[in-house]
Amino acid sequence: MKYYPEPILKLINSLSKLPGIGKKTAERLALHILYAPNHEAATLAADIIELKNSIRLCSVCFALTDQDKCRICTDPSRDQTLICVVENPTDMAAIEKANAFLGTYHILGGVLSPIDGIGPDDIRIHELLKRAGSKKTKEIVIATKTNVEGEATASYIIEKLKQTKINITRIASGIPMGGDLQYIDQLTMQKAMEKRYGV
Amino acid sequence: MKYYPEPILKLINSLSKLPGIGKKTAERLALHILYAPNHEAATLAADIIELKNSIRLCSVCFALTDQDKCRICTDPSRDQTLICVVENPTDMAAIEKANAFLGTYHILGGVLSPIDGIGPDDIRIHELLKRAGSKKTKEIVIATKTNVEGEATASYIIEKLKQTKINITRIASGIPMGGDLQYIDQLTMQKAMEKRYGV
Repeated sequence: MKYYPEPILKLINSLSKLPGIGKKTAERLALHILYAPNHEAATLAADIIELKNSIRLCSVCFALTDQDKCRICTDPSRDQTLICVVENPTDMAAIEKANAFLGTYHILGGVLSPIDGIGPDDIRIHELLKRAGSKKTKEIVIATKTNVEGEATASYIIEKLKQTKINITRIASGIPMGGDLQYIDQLTMQKAMEKRYGV
Repeated sequence: MKYYPEPILKLINSLSKLPGIGKKTAERLALHILYAPNHEAATLAADIIELKNSIRLCSVCFALTDQDKCRICTDPSRDQTLICVVENPTDMAAIEKANAFLGTYHILGGVLSPIDGIGPDDIRIHELLKRAGSKKTKEIVIATKTNVEGEATASYIIEKLKQTKINITRIASGIPMGGDLQYIDQLTMQKAMEKRYGV
């Protein structure tokens, strides 16, 4: 790449640290930025800086926000008595995208994983129990992933909340809508059969 | 996307203006930047700004550079009597990558294209003729693309340089190395046959 002047090489190098961006794509992006109008490049740079400076975690649910409390925690149309527990903001975004949930969230910031040394004190389980302790919480939906760590984390939370009068639920597992039975793995099929419901 | 706070949405929007970056990829990149170390994001932003401020065109060959003359025009090991004419810096980079050329370049900054209103005065043909006029130039390799506009531009330059004593050459066309004859288009095959050489 030595045929490019230093500032281009530096940008190519910085861009290629982004996920899914290899040297070739980084080169194309850098040249695009070079030829783009000045204000477009300036906006991109400013947006990166602003993002890093202004984003923090909601003081209630730990979602990403640029305020003290996030948009969902301050939205009067959302059911504040219903809390959906997710691993991270990306999972929360996936649920929000589907427009399938009108309560609030609790972002754990990880899952229990003894092999990586992550215990209950390393993710926001205490904060969840504290929220559960306030009288207004009526239902907690646990939407951690359906892999080993996600299931273990769900079990741990269920165990901890068993004493309370809160209704504890787990997001359903089964055949994806439009999914072909032929291509479903055995575990999912077992779960789908086990959790079959009357119609 | 309304589930993300404003600063994230703004960065997603800026990133999705880059070529080949859709909304989904932009979202992934923005979240990566959010979680990346501060200095990494700051470096990326600074590199974008520096690129726009420091890159200019070489005063001799019009390649991208951050100096008055580019690295190649000031390199004593490069043959300054040999000039390769290319359409743009990307084509120059492609030739440099192959390590196939040890002369200097002349970047036209486009091709003749009457349909788009681009004539000889709109690309750097005068500058090339001026360089050709200096006594030291011995050979000019024309490496414009092998499409209609590239060929027309090559013909125009050849016509203009016919009077000089400079050796004018055109980059060869033919079967790509390792290319399967079965998949070669007719025009390339005709050219490859026409330009066949004794071995």
